[in-house]
Amino acid sequence: MTRAAVPIAHCNACGAKVEMRIPEGDTHARAVCPACGHIQYQNPKVVVGSVPVWEDRILLCKRAIEPRLGKWTLPAGFMENSESAPEGAAREALEEANARVEIEQLYTLFSVPHISQVYVIFRARLLDLDFSPGIESLEVKLVEEQDVPWDQLAFASVRRTLAHFFEDRRTGIFLPRFGEIRPPER
Amino acid sequence: MTRAAVPIAHCNACGAKVEMRIPEGDTHARAVCPACGHIQYQNPKVVVGSVPVWEDRILLCKRAIEPRLGKWTLPAGFMENSESAPEGAAREALEEANARVEIEQLYTLFSVPHISQVYVIFRARLLDLDFSPGIESLEVKLVEEQDVPWDQLAFASVRRTLAHFFEDRRTGIFLPRFGEIRPPER
Repeated sequence: MTRAAVPIAHCNACGAKVEMRIPEGDTHARAVCPACGHIQYQNPKVVVGSVPVWEDRILLCKRAIEPRLGKWTLPAGFMENSESAPEGAAREALEEANARVEIEQLYTLFSVPHISQVYVIFRARLLDLDFSPGIESLEVKLVEEQDVPWDQLAFASVRRTLAHFFEDRRTGIFLPRFGEIRPPER
Repeated sequence: MTRAAVPIAHCNACGAKVEMRIPEGDTHARAVCPACGHIQYQNPKVVVGSVPVWEDRILLCKRAIEPRLGKWTLPAGFMENSESAPEGAAREALEEANARVEIEQLYTLFSVPHISQVYVIFRARLLDLDFSPGIESLEVKLVEEQDVPWDQLAFASVRRTLAHFFEDRRTGIFLPRFGEIRPPER
């Protein structure tokens, strides 16, 4: 996922050059504007996605964009302002796979601190078989467990979510899962 | 929680005035700089927190700051860059209640689309009784279920998380929960 945080050089309220310092009463250095006093915060971004299920198969997308072009992923992307997390996950399934899903349950949450991202992945029901590659996908397909391309998955969050999913499916009890992804994982 | 998104007027890379428009290949309007081409994205902020448990009691904090000054809350606050969600939740317990917690399990996720926030709350174990109000709290205390000040809770995410928690505690099965908070809830 792109949109890496870039250093803030100018105030986004007035355009003056900012200083990085810890404001009074705060605990972290922030971009503080000496001209107008505005503080611009930088916080982690949320990536929302889903495991769309049809019978015993799940929907995977082959990425048409960097990073990880050509690798396989679950439909997921940056959550937008003014939407809920499940709305964002459903939007990404539509954008990446022209797929309609019903979000069923919160499933995994993976933090990726070195790039300040949080993956939130829901279990979902694929509503029909009328899916096709969206502009960010080269290919979209339903796969059974034995056909998951484990060594061709784009992100650790996707790999770990799928491993938990198939493990939990055997017991029928889907536990919420959380974890951290640290280099060299990505 | 404060830090409401403010309109972006100037490019934070070069300081020029930005235009709000949909970049090529994008689906949403962004702050695009006509001078240097930089795109500044705005995305939802994550609030991380915990339900710290000691025997049959949970830890609540009375807010010393706006919004909702004087109301009761679970220890929670904005997730920072370069930390994981459970690290952030533990940090907030330490900052708001001088409390050491062990994060145990992902529990609730509430989206608050009208202010572009996502609450992620974990179940946690309070590790000792040596807690006290942090700078953002007027008072910190352990309460049993019957003593929860339901009409004096600061946020809907806190109220709903606690309601789920006590419901699930009766069965011993803590299900992951997600939901949306829309006005007039807050």
